[in-house]
Amino acid sequence: MISLTRPEIEALIDLSAAATAIEDAYRAASSGRIRLPPVGHITFPDHDADCHIKYGHMQGDSTFVIKVATGFPHNGKHDLPSGNGIVLVMSAETGAVKAMLHDEMVLTDVRTGLGGAIASRALARTDSKDALIVGTGPQARRQIEAHATLLPGLSFRVWGRDTDKVAQLVRDMSHVCDVTPVSDLKTATRNADVIVTATGSSAPLLMSDWVDAGTHITAVGADAPGKQELDVALVARADLLAVDLASQCLDHGEVCHAAQLGLIRPDDVTEIGTLLQTPERGRNDERQITIADLTGLAAQDIAMANAVLTAWRGQNL
Amino acid sequence: MISLTRPEIEALIDLSAAATAIEDAYRAASSGRIRLPPVGHITFPDHDADCHIKYGHMQGDSTFVIKVATGFPHNGKHDLPSGNGIVLVMSAETGAVKAMLHDEMVLTDVRTGLGGAIASRALARTDSKDALIVGTGPQARRQIEAHATLLPGLSFRVWGRDTDKVAQLVRDMSHVCDVTPVSDLKTATRNADVIVTATGSSAPLLMSDWVDAGTHITAVGADAPGKQELDVALVARADLLAVDLASQCLDHGEVCHAAQLGLIRPDDVTEIGTLLQTPERGRNDERQITIADLTGLAAQDIAMANAVLTAWRGQNL
Repeated sequence: MISLTRPEIEALIDLSAAATAIEDAYRAASSGRIRLPPVGHITFPDHDADCHIKYGHMQGDSTFVIKVATGFPHNGKHDLPSGNGIVLVMSAETGAVKAMLHDEMVLTDVRTGLGGAIASRALARTDSKDALIVGTGPQARRQIEAHATLLPGLSFRVWGRDTDKVAQLVRDMSHVCDVTPVSDLKTATRNADVIVTATGSSAPLLMSDWVDAGTHITAVGADAPGKQELDVALVARADLLAVDLASQCLDHGEVCHAAQLGLIRPDDVTEIGTLLQTPERGRNDERQITIADLTGLAAQDIAMANAVLTAWRGQNL
Repeated sequence: MISLTRPEIEALIDLSAAATAIEDAYRAASSGRIRLPPVGHITFPDHDADCHIKYGHMQGDSTFVIKVATGFPHNGKHDLPSGNGIVLVMSAETGAVKAMLHDEMVLTDVRTGLGGAIASRALARTDSKDALIVGTGPQARRQIEAHATLLPGLSFRVWGRDTDKVAQLVRDMSHVCDVTPVSDLKTATRNADVIVTATGSSAPLLMSDWVDAGTHITAVGADAPGKQELDVALVARADLLAVDLASQCLDHGEVCHAAQLGLIRPDDVTEIGTLLQTPERGRNDERQITIADLTGLAAQDIAMANAVLTAWRGQNL
């Protein structure tokens, strides 16, 4: 059994290779080439905490993957990260445990960042230059890192409620790319080609009438019931609504709020995997507003685990 | 993180301590002191194989447990065990992974054996001397080992379809206790105080009119749809039907067949945890026929993991 720690896993991650694997996983998920049973879930009400178990098997793969991810939001009080977890890679031919990736959430963080950048690359105008990042947490950083890798022409501005956290993010990310702080979200929204929302917000942050024609928005914050980053009018107004998994996003993603109000219909959303397979269903006008709503898929976790193990084998076999 | 291999885990298992922990887990499961979400499941049809993910949290425990168990029945062709797996012990206070028990199924095998012996001890006549084991596989051996530990007055006879396998089991188990082979199941049934069925049978092996008054039967083979070891008339005739989890046993355990035929009602079954808490609901006549139907509980897996880690801490801290 291969057993890797977080630092070992981090050293094996190649963002471009992982992005290719995740794009394939999106296509597989949308074309039925991957089996994804219902996500397991257990809560710890005393800590407002929970644990998700995501697992699945990509047709033809010799392995399947089980990801255990915990979210304990009050861990910060004890200077511990709120997210944690482990990824098991199991043989789909014998049932043996092939690898244990004790990633402590880094694979989830990276794949969520890459999922956002893949969606932006698929839907934003090809002449996009200005990216606005809404949020200052770990996932905002991952989105900048992934967007800088997959859309190298972008420059980044960052907005957050807490200006100290914005300044800290700008300092932390200066080695990756140019990031400048902005203080007024409404003005910044007007001037953005690509907007990425990566907050834990439970109320809309981005209003419809702030958004210009031609803008692409990738929303990754709403991944559980009760979370929302976008004005429902903006979701209703979008020319194209992309989702990572329709059933999941309509249940508890960003688009669920507009769907519950009857402002959009279930068949108004298109899966990213479908758009990657049939690009002609994507943006076809530079004035369209496009939105990608991402809730996270076990297919991405499978892709990340495979990418890490491929890199490990390249170095060790 | 504590990481233990199968040999390390085997060396830490104390059957009596584990039995005490499992009895407590049964009581917890039957009194609502443990949360057991629905079992996760994924199949691998090309190999007639599957993987179960059982998990849960015992009220007040600082940890919760996730067990991944695979069953690949054709592994024997490649001289590999059909069962495999891993147990993760996670902090219920921070979400961190506390221990990884790469037990390769040994914890499941042992807890299933102990579950059987706990049920027999709770329900068999206290003067029971003669135990008949039906089956010659790994679980038949675990049942002998557990019964010899928890009911030290028993002697064992073994029946199986394949006399070579019976002879091999008798040789293998001679270091644990006296085990003698029997060739006629009907005659052997007549003379048994305790019968344990531990086969993968999909059709009844034990007929009702072979069974004398006063016999206790523990049936552990039927743990999935399509499996059956006991004549439905025997289940219907029993004076007491015990189960490890009513919802599970009525769905796919031994008692489900009689229930589907309307020979028993759902409230004819009593959970082992309830019997352990209220022994007066157990056997109260030496002529009663009692049956225990066991399908396996995440509560047992939690108990086993805790018992192993307690032993590890005793040796290492």
